[in-house]
Amino acid sequence: MGKKILRVDMESGKLEYEEVSEEYRTLGGRGLTSKIISDEVPADCHPMGPNNKLVLAPGIVTGTSAPSSGRLSVGGKSPLTGGIKESNVGSRFAQTMAKLGLKAVVIQGKSDGYKMLKLDKDGGELLDASPWVGMGLYKAYEELYQKFGDKVDICSVGITAEMSGVNSGICFNDIDGLSSRYAGRGGLGAVMASRGLKFVVLDGKNAPGVEIKDKELFEKGRKKLAKAIQEHDVTKDGGALPSFGTAVLINIVNEAGGLPHRNFSSGKEDMAEMVSGEKKAEMIKQLGGERPHVCSPGCIIRCSEVWTKEGGKDPVGVLEYESVWALGPNCGIYDLEIIGELNRACNDLGLDTIEMGNTIAVAMEGGMLEFGDGEGALELMEEIRKGTYKGRMLIHGTEFVGKALGVHRVPTVKGQAMPAYDPRSIKGIGVTYATTTMGADHTAGYTIAPEILGTGGKIDPLEKDKVDISQALQRSTAVIDSSGYCLFTAFPVLDIPEGLEGMVETVAGVLGEDITVEDLDGIGKQILDIEREFNKRAGFTEKDDRLPEFMRTEELPPHDVVFDVEDGELDKVHEG
Amino acid sequence: MGKKILRVDMESGKLEYEEVSEEYRTLGGRGLTSKIISDEVPADCHPMGPNNKLVLAPGIVTGTSAPSSGRLSVGGKSPLTGGIKESNVGSRFAQTMAKLGLKAVVIQGKSDGYKMLKLDKDGGELLDASPWVGMGLYKAYEELYQKFGDKVDICSVGITAEMSGVNSGICFNDIDGLSSRYAGRGGLGAVMASRGLKFVVLDGKNAPGVEIKDKELFEKGRKKLAKAIQEHDVTKDGGALPSFGTAVLINIVNEAGGLPHRNFSSGKEDMAEMVSGEKKAEMIKQLGGERPHVCSPGCIIRCSEVWTKEGGKDPVGVLEYESVWALGPNCGIYDLEIIGELNRACNDLGLDTIEMGNTIAVAMEGGMLEFGDGEGALELMEEIRKGTYKGRMLIHGTEFVGKALGVHRVPTVKGQAMPAYDPRSIKGIGVTYATTTMGADHTAGYTIAPEILGTGGKIDPLEKDKVDISQALQRSTAVIDSSGYCLFTAFPVLDIPEGLEGMVETVAGVLGEDITVEDLDGIGKQILDIEREFNKRAGFTEKDDRLPEFMRTEELPPHDVVFDVEDGELDKVHEG
Repeated sequence: MGKKILRVDMESGKLEYEEVSEEYRTLGGRGLTSKIISDEVPADCHPMGPNNKLVLAPGIVTGTSAPSSGRLSVGGKSPLTGGIKESNVGSRFAQTMAKLGLKAVVIQGKSDGYKMLKLDKDGGELLDASPWVGMGLYKAYEELYQKFGDKVDICSVGITAEMSGVNSGICFNDIDGLSSRYAGRGGLGAVMASRGLKFVVLDGKNAPGVEIKDKELFEKGRKKLAKAIQEHDVTKDGGALPSFGTAVLINIVNEAGGLPHRNFSSGKEDMAEMVSGEKKAEMIKQLGGERPHVCSPGCIIRCSEVWTKEGGKDPVGVLEYESVWALGPNCGIYDLEIIGELNRACNDLGLDTIEMGNTIAVAMEGGMLEFGDGEGALELMEEIRKGTYKGRMLIHGTEFVGKALGVHRVPTVKGQAMPAYDPRSIKGIGVTYATTTMGADHTAGYTIAPEILGTGGKIDPLEKDKVDISQALQRSTAVIDSSGYCLFTAFPVLDIPEGLEGMVETVAGVLGEDITVEDLDGIGKQILDIEREFNKRAGFTEKDDRLPEFMRTEELPPHDVVFDVEDGELDKVHEG
Repeated sequence: MGKKILRVDMESGKLEYEEVSEEYRTLGGRGLTSKIISDEVPADCHPMGPNNKLVLAPGIVTGTSAPSSGRLSVGGKSPLTGGIKESNVGSRFAQTMAKLGLKAVVIQGKSDGYKMLKLDKDGGELLDASPWVGMGLYKAYEELYQKFGDKVDICSVGITAEMSGVNSGICFNDIDGLSSRYAGRGGLGAVMASRGLKFVVLDGKNAPGVEIKDKELFEKGRKKLAKAIQEHDVTKDGGALPSFGTAVLINIVNEAGGLPHRNFSSGKEDMAEMVSGEKKAEMIKQLGGERPHVCSPGCIIRCSEVWTKEGGKDPVGVLEYESVWALGPNCGIYDLEIIGELNRACNDLGLDTIEMGNTIAVAMEGGMLEFGDGEGALELMEEIRKGTYKGRMLIHGTEFVGKALGVHRVPTVKGQAMPAYDPRSIKGIGVTYATTTMGADHTAGYTIAPEILGTGGKIDPLEKDKVDISQALQRSTAVIDSSGYCLFTAFPVLDIPEGLEGMVETVAGVLGEDITVEDLDGIGKQILDIEREFNKRAGFTEKDDRLPEFMRTEELPPHDVVFDVEDGELDKVHEG
């Protein structure tokens, strides 16, 4: 039985299961969400108006036994960037959705009042979601698990999305049922809420599972990939990611002079050590959390964790590198317990941590509070929860608060705030920030792998010549984001050729298509071309492929460098 | 003695008088501000960052005895639109500046603390302006007139500009010294404040005056133009403008179904009559104000007035058509006394009334208050004055508050809110809104003249074929905005050929250049090309030359029409 596309018209309340067209048959994840958005959403529509849509699509191998492949893509026109958006998340939800035979769910129209979309193997229905409006997500998830049993998977938007905050992510459950996994970037939570959709609840009981056309090929590939993951220093048992999680990067990037402190004012500070991955792993032991941990069943990398308060109380879920940085050093805050509370508040309210940390940092620069004022930052989160105007000033992203407070040092590209790598001292990631279709996004072409970690061969982060590496990684990332594999499989795959072969064989096996490693660059380019064409129709030009002015003129200590990759070079990324 | 360009470096505090280059010699007003901004400001700079500049330039004939020519252009990169901006104002300030031999003042850099630029015939200096920071402008002007005597002219920015509000205009004195004349549009007040400049004070005592190269030609032209103004029905003594001011349009445009009510939800309502120009003229008599009145000496049209409270108290200055509409019908408010108070608050705080009225209307649509709640609107102005976060949500323009409250019916083009004509039922003005370099701006190509008033031949407002008329008017407007003449001279000039000849002769006379009526279209196109080229470098495309989605899909009563001029037609406006 092939997968179906479910179309939910929120206005009429009608659910329709559509056959998958030949054109969409080999697509999944990002490749599929971007194609559907490009085909169905007018590029010049208002992102919160009646014509935007939201698309959820698991990756191609998601829901199979392929390792570390519990990924889901969420697509729409972003109210943060004004361009196309794919936001990617790891959650069991993705696997359940695939096993239920859903290739994609398309949400369109707008309901009266908030609804919950409940799906199981027999179909679905829209239920009233009003009892959970205005409630924090941790509590809402508890109630929903009580109501539907602890086996369901939940996708949701929080209080800030209800307030149309364009920094609202879409939240998914982790394997403990915590509201801690986010398709965070680009404000798609606001789009979901603007359709009137509050929750998607999946009951995977007796789900048929994912059809694999060529089981032998799939199995062969799966083994090769699993072996590569288990052999690579970054991903193997006892390796960097399982041991310390993504926050292992805090010390490494700080040491390289590329960890932004106090709204991108310095690239290195001794205090970073206080919030490092190593320190965090130690504290998790003391506090009673859990590490390592998986975000979805079948992950053999296990970068995740459960951060808690003393005695295992108030479990947050994972504190990712990006979140620790955004809510920590970038705000001059070097206290993991406060960062944990801020992260919990973001998860509870429905906010993307990267954007929120940048927003707080710009608010600090604009004088709303002092750099380093962790208690003040926590109070801001309560202002948001209460829906005060001060709070509402903080839910629309970093550019918005920059405008509100007259700050011109605003670290955004295409309206989306930068992740935890300063592009002045790590120039390849600056090329990616500038030129990806997504707005400033490290995951779109993660040059940190070669520039900082030496994966696929070490290159100098301060060297300007990064067009080729960013191009190659942007294309391969578009493929990985479509496959359903976690981006972290790229570490072993970049260094171990058999790993890459195995990855491709699993995808070919599921689809029953003849795909080889040589095809990947072209497939990636196709996806990016669709996204770039959408952005062009939305009014984007090469002028949108630029870093903010202050990064081109203001030197970053300790290397005292500006971002000096020429515009003409940036424009070459999408050539060829 | 020829004019000079004064360059003020706010950082060093240095004032330099520069000779006028041959390239700039024949330019004035908008033609000059746009050229200097285009030459000196990087199009991709942050409008509030260190590289933006502010340019003030009187028109070519400003400061002479040419009738109705007391106009000044203010230019910069707009923080509201992100593109080039010329904002035009009528004030004696313009005349004094020209008489002081200043072709332009260029403000660059940023001072510590707020300064006042004081200029007289012997030169200038920067003084401390901190005593007036945080003070309403009516009171500040009173104090400055006490300090410097009642003959000076004053340019200023208000409290909202100090708060970086990108809907901050630049205020100028009327002939009674009231802070009521505004270069309001596009947020250039925020740019001026971001340079650290709070006031420009001009002492015109013994100013040398404006040199006229060919006095005979000038005098010949002046008489022809004055005669045309005194003959035309709109501008003559007892004509529409002197009798009722610009608000004479309220009844006329409402009758045509083009007066937007309640955030562009209806084009005609009976209640409009309660805020008509006729009603206002009657009330001015009762309340003790003055009508007609001039905005600057030598104006023979006299559309202005002094609106006051009962007994002539709390004089506001003029209540323009656009302001009455924006703060009135567009907010569902049909009470002139409340509108007068709202207008006074805008003048006092330093806000553009058109943008502010739209902002309040969108705030009403977003649920911040009810349509028609005049008292609530007045309370919002006090929130702004106090600098609360609620208030600060309202000083950054209409798109900002739309985003803040999740409203998608936001009537803006290029980020600037629409004036008092609904483009669905008056399509030519829609073509101008869409395609002008300025963002939605009626003055940039005032098709209302032929579409509603029949000036230059009557054409049907509902007819779609408006590319040619908008193009012609955008070009001629660019010329008028450079000449120093008030745009209202266009009424007689469009209908009476000798008037136009006379206008051109005065300009040719001042410059000593051989300019004829046939040259005007080309000169206008040159100015627009410079502006369009700047906007292109700033990242604008034809996608920015579009009206908002809801106006293309939502029918406007009573004609039940959408804006249906095709995109391809809009793109033709700047061809040829």
